[in-house]
Amino acid sequence: MITILRLGHRLGRDDRISTHCGLVARALGADAIIYSGDHDGSMIEGLKKTSKRWGGKFKISYEAKWKKILDSHKKKGFCIVHATMYGLPLQKRIKEIRKKKKILFVIGGEKVPGELYSLVNYNIAVTNQPHSEVAALAIFMHEYFKGKELDNRFKGKINIVPQEKGKKVIER
Amino acid sequence: MITILRLGHRLGRDDRISTHCGLVARALGADAIIYSGDHDGSMIEGLKKTSKRWGGKFKISYEAKWKKILDSHKKKGFCIVHATMYGLPLQKRIKEIRKKKKILFVIGGEKVPGELYSLVNYNIAVTNQPHSEVAALAIFMHEYFKGKELDNRFKGKINIVPQEKGKKVIER
Repeated sequence: MITILRLGHRLGRDDRISTHCGLVARALGADAIIYSGDHDGSMIEGLKKTSKRWGGKFKISYEAKWKKILDSHKKKGFCIVHATMYGLPLQKRIKEIRKKKKILFVIGGEKVPGELYSLVNYNIAVTNQPHSEVAALAIFMHEYFKGKELDNRFKGKINIVPQEKGKKVIER
Repeated sequence: MITILRLGHRLGRDDRISTHCGLVARALGADAIIYSGDHDGSMIEGLKKTSKRWGGKFKISYEAKWKKILDSHKKKGFCIVHATMYGLPLQKRIKEIRKKKKILFVIGGEKVPGELYSLVNYNIAVTNQPHSEVAALAIFMHEYFKGKELDNRFKGKINIVPQEKGKKVIER
């Protein structure tokens, strides 16, 4: 069970990056995403619509107080993993992390509260270079599930039939 | 050698997603990114600055005519791989693609020209679900390099020393 916590969402500016985080989380097998920062009703509604149309049981929600999320997940036995370029290499910790069956995966916003680093179980880095929370999330999921998440199937109203060239879409 | 071609950049709207594509490409071991669509001087300048500061030889450029890029890379013996959710599963083609030493990896914008599908060597899908070109790029690089790209080192003016908690940055 993997839940993503996306910190520090900013209205307007983070619209698309936060949406991509949600879509990636869903497509690669997370169970839920919780947004913190600004409340963005239209982004969350958009994601819910997409999720419903394409299938699966992915949950999308909002909570202003990120510490509350950390606390409640700790109480439920979740291992808290924070993606940060300052952390230890993912490839050195993933075996350990894979043993945990309940993960809360935390991805920043532009400014991450300093105290977060000491409140989590792991600060892990998907490279120590600046890049993207979307990519860090994707590679974490891919490593955690050992690539098997790419074979996930969703039963949606809309489905794609893979093609060598062109597009084939089935709607029902 | 991997070059990324980012299609259909739109000023303003694609700012951050396109920036993330460039940063991910660099961090995960691509040699270059070429942007097409709107010309966005400030985005490109921003990326060049980041790249210079953090090290490495990553190249960033712009070309209005995407077909020209395809043609010139074909002539130089590049294999053209297009990431699309309509394509064949990455996991079924990656072994074949890994044998190619020169790759042009094409990622869309919002609207990809239909003719592109027949002009490339591979249309590959990182899942057939909607998500993010940033994530598709990341997982492609990760699969192509079999995870070894996470160990890449850059000699920059700024370097991070991985920490279990907190941040350690060395500037020179």
